[in-house]
Amino acid sequence: MADPKFDVIAIGNAIVDVLAPVTDAFLEAEELPKGSMRLIDAERSVDLYGKMGQTKEISGGAAANTLTGATMLGLKTAFIGQVADDQLGEIYRHDLTAVGVSFDTPARPYSDKESEPPTGRCLILVAPDGERTMNTSLGASQFLPAAAIDDDLIRSTRVLFLEGYLWDPTEPREAMKRAIQVARDAGVKIAFATCADFCVHMHGKDFRALIDDGLIDILFVNEEEAGILEGSDPDAAFESLAADVPVVVMTRGADGALAARGDERAKVSPEPVEKVQDLTGAGDLFAAGFLSGYCRDASLEESLIRGAVAAGEVISHWGARPEADLQALVKARLG
Amino acid sequence: MADPKFDVIAIGNAIVDVLAPVTDAFLEAEELPKGSMRLIDAERSVDLYGKMGQTKEISGGAAANTLTGATMLGLKTAFIGQVADDQLGEIYRHDLTAVGVSFDTPARPYSDKESEPPTGRCLILVAPDGERTMNTSLGASQFLPAAAIDDDLIRSTRVLFLEGYLWDPTEPREAMKRAIQVARDAGVKIAFATCADFCVHMHGKDFRALIDDGLIDILFVNEEEAGILEGSDPDAAFESLAADVPVVVMTRGADGALAARGDERAKVSPEPVEKVQDLTGAGDLFAAGFLSGYCRDASLEESLIRGAVAAGEVISHWGARPEADLQALVKARLG
Repeated sequence: MADPKFDVIAIGNAIVDVLAPVTDAFLEAEELPKGSMRLIDAERSVDLYGKMGQTKEISGGAAANTLTGATMLGLKTAFIGQVADDQLGEIYRHDLTAVGVSFDTPARPYSDKESEPPTGRCLILVAPDGERTMNTSLGASQFLPAAAIDDDLIRSTRVLFLEGYLWDPTEPREAMKRAIQVARDAGVKIAFATCADFCVHMHGKDFRALIDDGLIDILFVNEEEAGILEGSDPDAAFESLAADVPVVVMTRGADGALAARGDERAKVSPEPVEKVQDLTGAGDLFAAGFLSGYCRDASLEESLIRGAVAAGEVISHWGARPEADLQALVKARLG
Repeated sequence: MADPKFDVIAIGNAIVDVLAPVTDAFLEAEELPKGSMRLIDAERSVDLYGKMGQTKEISGGAAANTLTGATMLGLKTAFIGQVADDQLGEIYRHDLTAVGVSFDTPARPYSDKESEPPTGRCLILVAPDGERTMNTSLGASQFLPAAAIDDDLIRSTRVLFLEGYLWDPTEPREAMKRAIQVARDAGVKIAFATCADFCVHMHGKDFRALIDDGLIDILFVNEEEAGILEGSDPDAAFESLAADVPVVVMTRGADGALAARGDERAKVSPEPVEKVQDLTGAGDLFAAGFLSGYCRDASLEESLIRGAVAAGEVISHWGARPEADLQALVKARLG
């Protein structure tokens, strides 16, 4: 096929992050397992927000964070996700398009705030060690309709990237299933990020079925998610996934990351970071860096290094969108 | 009179800051004088926002920034200002009340986004050296009605703090005039911040009339504003203002700040800052620190040191709301 128009098109949640520092004691008092992610309803959202100190608002969403990093690393990208036609939705669209991500999914109408869901928000509590605990109200994002999938758009990319979080709500799951079929028929590679423990707990069977049906070409997991998915220790899970998925990338927090492609194995240590400010987006940016190598046919090792550099940048400041010149950082690191 | 309920009540703009990094070349191309502040209309706002890279949203507003710092330094405070009944307005109210600032001014209705002004926004372009250039759409803030002034509330504070920016739109100016009268009759001290060159250019006569009428007890200016106000060089302006205002605080950027109280003079150097990230809020936080000394009857010198510490904290990160424990920083500095 001719050179595709896009390198990566992602389907993901459109979420504005609302970040505030908290103490470990606060997390305990609120019974929030540190480092976790959960969906919360409107009532709990109001309650928790009321207890948070002053905040920063920074656009987020796992796949959109990945696309932002990938775009800053030179890839051509597009995003499919649903904001509401409200102020946060405008901000969200601006921030993606401002870095060069194409984003044409129409906003969901928001004429009546009593009855229409607003743009999704994630209340992110950042502990002194930088670990983030996420509390998400999906809002309009969870109603992404299958009609938002433009088949021609899906056919115009090298890689289709799917965010596991979005497998949870019904409508986006159907949209993703349709996109997978279109991608598969067009020879587009399909990347999938499991995103969080709870996604694997709830939908691991579906994820495994996608793998067994040969519908995942690149799998992004962390070690906990791999262990849950395969019902084994992370090392064994990595190997069993590597036997079934063409490319597997497993992040291991402070232990770096591993990748497998067929019989090939590579690993990388984390980039040194002066001070970890906020771990939000670490996995998303690792995927961004890796994909920037993958789409250039770089070696597995170089792709991992790119992932580590991008992840290192995003944890050195608040928010899950990179701020520094990622290309320059990667160039300096690769020499 | 009995101990007042509040130490500082401020009347100011309710503005959410929208911050993005820019190059000096961008400022030149947009014909924006670096370090300046201007009011922009909806059309220019859309144009400029479209040219900005990805942003962070952080609550701002000069007087509200001052109150946030003052509250973190132990003062009892309240804010009078007007947001719209929209998402940014909710965020704004949350961020002030979350740190302990009392804020009861009702939101302006925002049922129809085509005809009602939204919560005010300031597009802040931050240059590599940290200097900020501000482009403000006042939105609902400029329609703060005189009815928002609760006379009993004004009588319940030690200091009434007025933001010079808000002298520009008609309705808030009338509201402030009324508040000044109530404060004067009740023996409440009146603090006034001139805020920006353009405020002094446009309303310097009014500001001078307030001084001549003995209606300003504490004046916060920077050296440019002082020079414009008095039509002289900054040093001479400082002395002529000191002859007419009981307490004058003049900030001088990298040269620190001066204060005068009657014949008394004091000065302070800037606090050392590892890297200036974003100068937004430096003057506002200087005022916060100074007031935290003033309300404790601290010496002029200690009040200046408190100002320098608070300003040093806020320029060490993005956004105009302090993040670190200001009390601890002040304690460490004062020994």
